Amino acid sequence: MEFELTEAFVDQIKDAVAARKVMFIQDQMNELLAPDISLVMHELEMDEAKYVLQLLDMEFGAEIIRDLDEDFRKKFLKDFTSDEIADYLEFIESDDAVDILNEQPVPMREEVIDLIEDPIKATHIRDLMHYDEDCAGGLMGKELLKTNLNWTIDQCIEEIRRQTKHVEKIYSIYVVDNQDKLLGRLSLKKMLLADDNALVSDIYDPDIISVESYREAKEVAEIMKHYDLVSIPVVNVHGKLLGRITIDDVVDVITEQAEIDMQIMAGISNPVEEDDDIWKLSKSRLPWLLIGMLGGILGAKFIGLFEADIALIPAMAFFIPLITSTGGNVGIQSSSVVVQSLAKESGPSLFTYERLFKGLVVALINGLAISTLVFLINMVIGEHTTLAIVVSTSLFCVVMLSSLMGTVTPIVLSRMNVNPALASGPFITTANDLLGLGIYFFVAHILYASL
Amino acid sequence: MEFELTEAFVDQIKDAVAARKVMFIQDQMNELLAPDISLVMHELEMDEAKYVLQLLDMEFGAEIIRDLDEDFRKKFLKDFTSDEIADYLEFIESDDAVDILNEQPVPMREEVIDLIEDPIKATHIRDLMHYDEDCAGGLMGKELLKTNLNWTIDQCIEEIRRQTKHVEKIYSIYVVDNQDKLLGRLSLKKMLLADDNALVSDIYDPDIISVESYREAKEVAEIMKHYDLVSIPVVNVHGKLLGRITIDDVVDVITEQAEIDMQIMAGISNPVEEDDDIWKLSKSRLPWLLIGMLGGILGAKFIGLFEADIALIPAMAFFIPLITSTGGNVGIQSSSVVVQSLAKESGPSLFTYERLFKGLVVALINGLAISTLVFLINMVIGEHTTLAIVVSTSLFCVVMLSSLMGTVTPIVLSRMNVNPALASGPFITTANDLLGLGIYFFVAHILYASL
Repeated sequence: MEFELTEAFVDQIKDAVAARKVMFIQDQMNELLAPDISLVMHELEMDEAKYVLQLLDMEFGAEIIRDLDEDFRKKFLKDFTSDEIADYLEFIESDDAVDILNEQPVPMREEVIDLIEDPIKATHIRDLMHYDEDCAGGLMGKELLKTNLNWTIDQCIEEIRRQTKHVEKIYSIYVVDNQDKLLGRLSLKKMLLADDNALVSDIYDPDIISVESYREAKEVAEIMKHYDLVSIPVVNVHGKLLGRITIDDVVDVITEQAEIDMQIMAGISNPVEEDDDIWKLSKSRLPWLLIGMLGGILGAKFIGLFEADIALIPAMAFFIPLITSTGGNVGIQSSSVVVQSLAKESGPSLFTYERLFKGLVVALINGLAISTLVFLINMVIGEHTTLAIVVSTSLFCVVMLSSLMGTVTPIVLSRMNVNPALASGPFITTANDLLGLGIYFFVAHILYASL
Repeated sequence: MEFELTEAFVDQIKDAVAARKVMFIQDQMNELLAPDISLVMHELEMDEAKYVLQLLDMEFGAEIIRDLDEDFRKKFLKDFTSDEIADYLEFIESDDAVDILNEQPVPMREEVIDLIEDPIKATHIRDLMHYDEDCAGGLMGKELLKTNLNWTIDQCIEEIRRQTKHVEKIYSIYVVDNQDKLLGRLSLKKMLLADDNALVSDIYDPDIISVESYREAKEVAEIMKHYDLVSIPVVNVHGKLLGRITIDDVVDVITEQAEIDMQIMAGISNPVEEDDDIWKLSKSRLPWLLIGMLGGILGAKFIGLFEADIALIPAMAFFIPLITSTGGNVGIQSSSVVVQSLAKESGPSLFTYERLFKGLVVALINGLAISTLVFLINMVIGEHTTLAIVVSTSLFCVVMLSSLMGTVTPIVLSRMNVNPALASGPFITTANDLLGLGIYFFVAHILYASL
């Protein structure tokens, strides 16, 4: 049913482009949907892709451009004149049009807007260019259906018919007063069921969730998820209706947010994709590797303090990796659970103490389990009893402290308005490595002296 | 605008419940939307929550029940009779009704269905109970709008008006033939713009993406995201229209999938939430801690082979944490980039060799950077030259090999149909710890012998 991109198909299209088989390409493409053609485009050379695009209907071409990957599109449109871009933008909704324009060089942007023939579209685009892309204003489109509170359903349907020509998908009909202040929504269902002479004011729903244009994209996503909305109106500080955000844009925000969190957890400092260039990929990874390296060198200096002990009891060195890796694993486990529940909460976190307590009980159970097991294994494989006691005692302390660190760090970061996912990454691993080494050699020093 | 849950508000409601202040509770609740009341419910005792619910209108109450957290709802509904549950289910769409029923004890399920008064709803629910919850059939609802291909728009609108009474939100109108075979869709926009006497067959859109009922939830989410759909029809193997899946259910699937991947990366083997009980939390973490522990003990045995070397040159032990943590960090970075791009791909991955090559070039750059830097630092802080050479050489090899492992492991897992996120967790850390130790002591052994 859906399209599957194969190397064979891409080769076929490349050959057809080389042989200028216009009919064949048109037939193949018209069998596909725009998001699928975008996938094919990504595998073509820029001139091949442009050739294919120009064989297609403008409206279809506009859809394909809208669905292209940002990085690809930026390079792809370099070969287009301002006039060509303006022609395609006529068919693209204002929010997507602004995204495309913002990928172009600054001087070109104004040029393109001036070339757009539809004056309403041009005004919409100019309005939207002001907003930061990470806020509600940057996500919203201007195309929406609205009705005046005082109209009859008959008038409303007439007006909606007129407006709907400019709107790709119908989500909701917003109800406004004469000053365009958002008052509520009229569901399509109620509109269809209502009597022609009924008034909008009689059947509209005044309970409407809206967001101000300055709200963060992440917040908008949470609100839409919480209230199960497929679209949300955007208002200014005075409640005037400015635009609407649709769920597809928010799904992108949710997906991106999850990816960023995952990368932060993995110690990648700038969001990257596998197809970014090598230099960008290296640079995004180096910061955390360097911090890990500094941690490692600090660790080396620290262990160095116990050189004499190690020379005497080299077996102490054997368990360094066990101690550090357990600390890292426990830290990541604890922090990721907290990070996820922080992400789900709206408003202040109510139960900090309960959370800490619970984390510590879990750590107690697992710490006891692991250190007992390690003690038994060490006895079976014939390690010295003193060393076995040192290892298990430190292991238990490491589990408890790493768990505490893993629980507290994301809460502290989140209170400081730093992304708490940072706490689940190499940060906690590095910190816990040092913590673990400290505990291990401290316990060893004391126990060897006293046993 | 949106509701914010505060401890003060929860206390106020609890007090009102204790004092049986019916009017106050009703007033407070009727100012909120259902998803917000669900949040409040989660903070109340079961009997308090039931008291509040029973003060509200049945339809509103049904919405609140639908929005409750699964775990909470399961406990909450224990106090309800089959009759009470059936009454609420009358107001809940079939897909959500089935989810709620499946949380009840098996014997109760049939009892509740028999008590549902609306025979169509009962049939819908019975139909849906057969599907596994992780497939398209398990996500779909039966409430949808459909029109026959041969109807006029006038007939169609009349019929849609009738159908819409049973449907909460209007997404799409599906076009079917006399055998209910899905043929396409009629957009609301086209329906509103069309002439009353036009035929559905003249204006419907036959390009429609649908999914078979057996498709995996994850696939459905990818398809809806790829094609930017707010709803998707579900068909059987013969193309007969069975139901529809809406974007809100898919947003939940996407969010859950991201959470599961993150937990797997963090070494938590069963999906848990912070408010699960302590035993479940401990159990979900123990497996990876045990594997990490076995890795640590293996590491200890391995280092033990070099006991004589360490006794001679204790400084060798200093750099163990640097080597193991760098291996772990590089492995997690590499694998998470690959995991993310695997998650985005539909169909086979085209460019395995390019991916491997790129990963290795990035590793080469970062490996050289780190090992050079460590060498310089070691020279500045006055380590022995031989040791500095051993450390930097091993570090470079560890970065290269960990990066290779981090890139290959998720690809192999994904080919074996195992969730590749597994490769970004403690698995890779443990494997790379051992790998790093092996390289370090091997290089040391050779270089110390030859220098």
